Amino acid sequence: MSVTLVGAGPGDPGLITVRGLERLRACDAVVYDRLVSEELVDEAPDDALRICRDGLGQEQVDRLLVELGRELDVVRLKGGDPFVFGRGSEEIEVLRAAGIDCEVVPGVSSIAAVPAAAWIPVTHRGLSDRVTIATAHAADGAEPDYGGLARAGGTLVLFMGLSRLASLAAGLIDAGLPAETPAAVVSRGTLSDQEVVTGPLAELAESASELPGPALVVIGDVVALAGSLAPLATLSA
Amino acid sequence: MSVTLVGAGPGDPGLITVRGLERLRACDAVVYDRLVSEELVDEAPDDALRICRDGLGQEQVDRLLVELGRELDVVRLKGGDPFVFGRGSEEIEVLRAAGIDCEVVPGVSSIAAVPAAAWIPVTHRGLSDRVTIATAHAADGAEPDYGGLARAGGTLVLFMGLSRLASLAAGLIDAGLPAETPAAVVSRGTLSDQEVVTGPLAELAESASELPGPALVVIGDVVALAGSLAPLATLSA
Repeated sequence: MSVTLVGAGPGDPGLITVRGLERLRACDAVVYDRLVSEELVDEAPDDALRICRDGLGQEQVDRLLVELGRELDVVRLKGGDPFVFGRGSEEIEVLRAAGIDCEVVPGVSSIAAVPAAAWIPVTHRGLSDRVTIATAHAADGAEPDYGGLARAGGTLVLFMGLSRLASLAAGLIDAGLPAETPAAVVSRGTLSDQEVVTGPLAELAESASELPGPALVVIGDVVALAGSLAPLATLSA
Repeated sequence: MSVTLVGAGPGDPGLITVRGLERLRACDAVVYDRLVSEELVDEAPDDALRICRDGLGQEQVDRLLVELGRELDVVRLKGGDPFVFGRGSEEIEVLRAAGIDCEVVPGVSSIAAVPAAAWIPVTHRGLSDRVTIATAHAADGAEPDYGGLARAGGTLVLFMGLSRLASLAAGLIDAGLPAETPAAVVSRGTLSDQEVVTGPLAELAESASELPGPALVVIGDVVALAGSLAPLATLSA
C-alpha cells in the first residue's frame, strides 16, 4: 500500500523512465492527468483501476490518493516531472500527513525536452549558461514579474496559455528585453502533431497565438541555433 | 549510420528513458561519459564498441563521433539531459556539418531529479514559481553574476564544484541574498551513496564542502519543505 508519483515525461510515451514504466506495470490503480498519453495508461495491468483526474479539483485528487493509497499500490501518473510545476509536492505533503508510504520517480520535464524536440538547446557554450523557468501567470492571478524575467539573462522557458502571449511579449519588451530577441513557441512538443513557430519576440504572438496547447515559450539566443541543429528535411518542410 | 544522443539521467540507471534504453540495446557503438553508470553501458550489445570519453577533449569526442557515425549506429550516452549543460548541441552542430544523421533522446535532468531525491521540489505553490539554473562559474573563468542570481527570486539550482561553495555563498550574501536562506547540497544525487546537507546559506560551506562530487546546490525556501516531504526513516537516520 503506497502511492508512487511517476513523471510520464513531456508527451511522447517513449520518454517515460524505465522505473516509471515498471511501477506502472505493477500497480493496482493509476490516477492520471488528462495530458498523459493513453498508450502509457494502457501499460497498467488489465485489472487495475484507471482514473483520469480531469474534472477533479486538487483537493479531491488528494483525498482520492489517500483513500486508494490505504488499500492499494497506486501510481499517480503526472505529465512531465512531478516536482516541476506539477503540484507533486502538495500531494506528497497530504499523503505523508495521512501516514501513507510515498515514492517519487522523476520524469523528463518539458522544460528542456520540449525545446530539444524543436532542436533548441536551453544552454549552449558561449550563448547561454543560465536558464530561468517560470509560469507566465503569478499564482494569485497578478501580472508576472516582467522586470525580473527581462533581466534574468540566458534562456527563458515559460509555461503558459498562448492567449496571454501578446501581453507577455509586450510586458517583457517594455521591461527592457529587445524586441528582436529570438523566440519560439512549441505546441504539443514531442507529440506527433507538434508545431513550432519561431521569430522575433515582438512578432511571436501574431504567428503563434492560435496554436493548440499545451505550449511552451522559449526566449533567448539559443532559439536561433535550431536552424543549424535541425535536420534539413525538417527545415524545408 | 547515425548518432543518437541519449540522456542517461541523473545517475540511478532506472531513470533512463524507455526509448534511450531501446537505442542503447540496438547500437553498434556507445561513447559514454565517465559519470554514466556501468549498468547502463552494459546494456549495449555484447559485440558493441564501448568507449569512455574520459581523457578525451571535446574536439576529440566530436571527431570520434563523426568517424564512428559514418559507419555505425552510435549512441552517445551522456549524464543527465544532453541539452542541459551537456554540450550536446555542440556535438550535433559538428555531426550536422559532417552530414551525419542525428537524433536526440532527452533524459531526466539532474536539475529537478537530484533535488527531488532529497525531497526538495524546485517549485511549490505559494513558495516558489520560478527556477533559475546556472553553473557557478562563467564559461570564461570569470566570477559568476552574483547580483543577477541573488535577485532572481524563486529557487536557484547550481551545478558546481564544491570547492567553490564558500565563495559562492559569500558572493550571493554580499549581493543581497539573506544569509539564512535555506540551502542544500546534494552529493551523488539518486545514487546509493547519495548524501544531503541542508542549512542556512551562510553555514553551508562549512558542513558540505568536503562532500564527493558530482554535487548540486539548491537555494531557496523550497529546501525547507524536505522536512515534511521526506519519509520519517530518512530524517531520523
